[in-house]
Amino acid sequence: MNKKQGAQSIAFASPPIITSVANIVGPMEGEGLLQQYFDHIMPDNLNNWDTWEQCESFMMEWAIRAAANKDKITIDMIDCILAGDLLNQLMSTHFAIKNLSRPFLGLYGACSTMIESLLLGAILLDGGFANKVAAATSSHHDAAERQYRFPSELGVQRPPGAQWTVTGSGAAILSVTGSGPRITMATIGKIVDYGIKDTNAMGAAMAPAAVDTLWEHFQDTGRMPAYYDMIFTGDLGSVGKELVIQLMKEKGLNITSNYQDCGCMIYRKEQDTHAGASGCASSAVVFCGYLYNMLMNSSLKKILLVGTGSLHSTTSYQQKESIPGIAHAVAIEI
Amino acid sequence: MNKKQGAQSIAFASPPIITSVANIVGPMEGEGLLQQYFDHIMPDNLNNWDTWEQCESFMMEWAIRAAANKDKITIDMIDCILAGDLLNQLMSTHFAIKNLSRPFLGLYGACSTMIESLLLGAILLDGGFANKVAAATSSHHDAAERQYRFPSELGVQRPPGAQWTVTGSGAAILSVTGSGPRITMATIGKIVDYGIKDTNAMGAAMAPAAVDTLWEHFQDTGRMPAYYDMIFTGDLGSVGKELVIQLMKEKGLNITSNYQDCGCMIYRKEQDTHAGASGCASSAVVFCGYLYNMLMNSSLKKILLVGTGSLHSTTSYQQKESIPGIAHAVAIEI
Repeated sequence: MNKKQGAQSIAFASPPIITSVANIVGPMEGEGLLQQYFDHIMPDNLNNWDTWEQCESFMMEWAIRAAANKDKITIDMIDCILAGDLLNQLMSTHFAIKNLSRPFLGLYGACSTMIESLLLGAILLDGGFANKVAAATSSHHDAAERQYRFPSELGVQRPPGAQWTVTGSGAAILSVTGSGPRITMATIGKIVDYGIKDTNAMGAAMAPAAVDTLWEHFQDTGRMPAYYDMIFTGDLGSVGKELVIQLMKEKGLNITSNYQDCGCMIYRKEQDTHAGASGCASSAVVFCGYLYNMLMNSSLKKILLVGTGSLHSTTSYQQKESIPGIAHAVAIEI
Repeated sequence: MNKKQGAQSIAFASPPIITSVANIVGPMEGEGLLQQYFDHIMPDNLNNWDTWEQCESFMMEWAIRAAANKDKITIDMIDCILAGDLLNQLMSTHFAIKNLSRPFLGLYGACSTMIESLLLGAILLDGGFANKVAAATSSHHDAAERQYRFPSELGVQRPPGAQWTVTGSGAAILSVTGSGPRITMATIGKIVDYGIKDTNAMGAAMAPAAVDTLWEHFQDTGRMPAYYDMIFTGDLGSVGKELVIQLMKEKGLNITSNYQDCGCMIYRKEQDTHAGASGCASSAVVFCGYLYNMLMNSSLKKILLVGTGSLHSTTSYQQKESIPGIAHAVAIEI
């Protein structure tokens, strides 16, 4: 492919096929709106493990093995695993992946990691570097809250704009052969920072990055928002979603009719999660379940999936730095 | 390329060219063995910044801009930046990259990140997805020690097997055209864990992963160690280096005559760093300086560079988990 200078998007010559997906969630997600689209719902957030982190590792390993099983392949047939999570030094990912003993590339894009892994997986396949790869990510509510904010047991009151980190993992098998929806295009995002400093306002911190990536995607590809049956962002929640609609309108594009955020699709209103879901698993469990299902039964034929990541750490927050955001996009079509 | 099932290695059809490199280090590295191969030596570990983290971000941005300048390209001509560091949530990387406003993929491979970024950069170029990419990584002694062990100011005594985290950053520009050494092959590593639990014994924790990747590289490619003028690991230090030699010997391969570790090449003995250097910047500042120079003047023509990463976090350590290791390799030839 000849790349125009400055372009952020890739069109795959032989669009890689997502041949199978699997997901697993915690009990709260299991009581939510997408209940019927989860492969496994754990009875509690520990699932008999000693630590939340071990439980998160278990979920990722489970999701990858389940996706491989559905695809009727053995783990040995996976050429490379691309994965990451939210915990310091990708702790959950590393302890999950070491049990699988396959070549591994660790990624960190905060909550955009599922899309980063799909995007790089597609690059490995379309470039001829692999025949099958697994893309996976996970998050765990309690592990993430303790690390980024407060331990859940403290019962600290959450502001209305806060989001709820999803406990779950999603994995996809990408292949050069087989059947399923294909990753036709990808847009690699830039880091965008509008100066938001409140770690409870992640939707607002990530929205400008989502808008930047959407805009670049449409510029690069010549597509208009209406080309897609639906455009999904990963975990902006209700606050970030409204900001995306507004910022896109300021750029002259109206996406109200075919845009939704995965963070607004997981929990019921009465679950009182405030602004919706967040975490790597937000886009991962929605795509590796509901959306994949909609694509397979042709309820949706063309979607643009935009992973959104809030690139702060507790250190950067304590040092009064702002929260940079990033968003990567993949076009998935069947 | 047709990939044999189970193989971990890639042979690039059009080996990407490393057209320029740059590095920057702290004062202690500047007093070390490779003094003349550093582009910039900071007067102290803050370099007028308020925090060590800001200083680390500065180093990475400086290294990428310097590598681009040497290559006579503007930052706008870089299609994608691949980078990561050791700090929680890649803090240094994100604040460096946001100033560059280019498409970015965040990677985490602990101290193997430089090689992971070179490897994925080569994939982007050889696959036709980009024309120029930047690969970069950084580490900062004080920021890393505070995060992983103890704040430097505490003056905690270090055990003899401990290594010294390098303060520095290295960046490389990879291109489909131009002149310079080429990345001809890459081997993506598996996570290997021999059960080491002492975070001061990282060389021992990472050595088995290095051996696994070396072994797979030789198996996949049919090359023998003697094919390379030199084989370099990233930051095993004197303890890990001896283990690699021993473990390779047990596999029937003698690499004593053409093997060295970047962690043993940075500091002078009298600097008393104990087992040598570690950190993402260990392999980065050695490659993006001394080794690149040796390749350009043909003192070395074929090297195998093996990045080694210790995949622990403070949480995994406190939870009494072992330290998984990983190693990725790139063959660089001129």
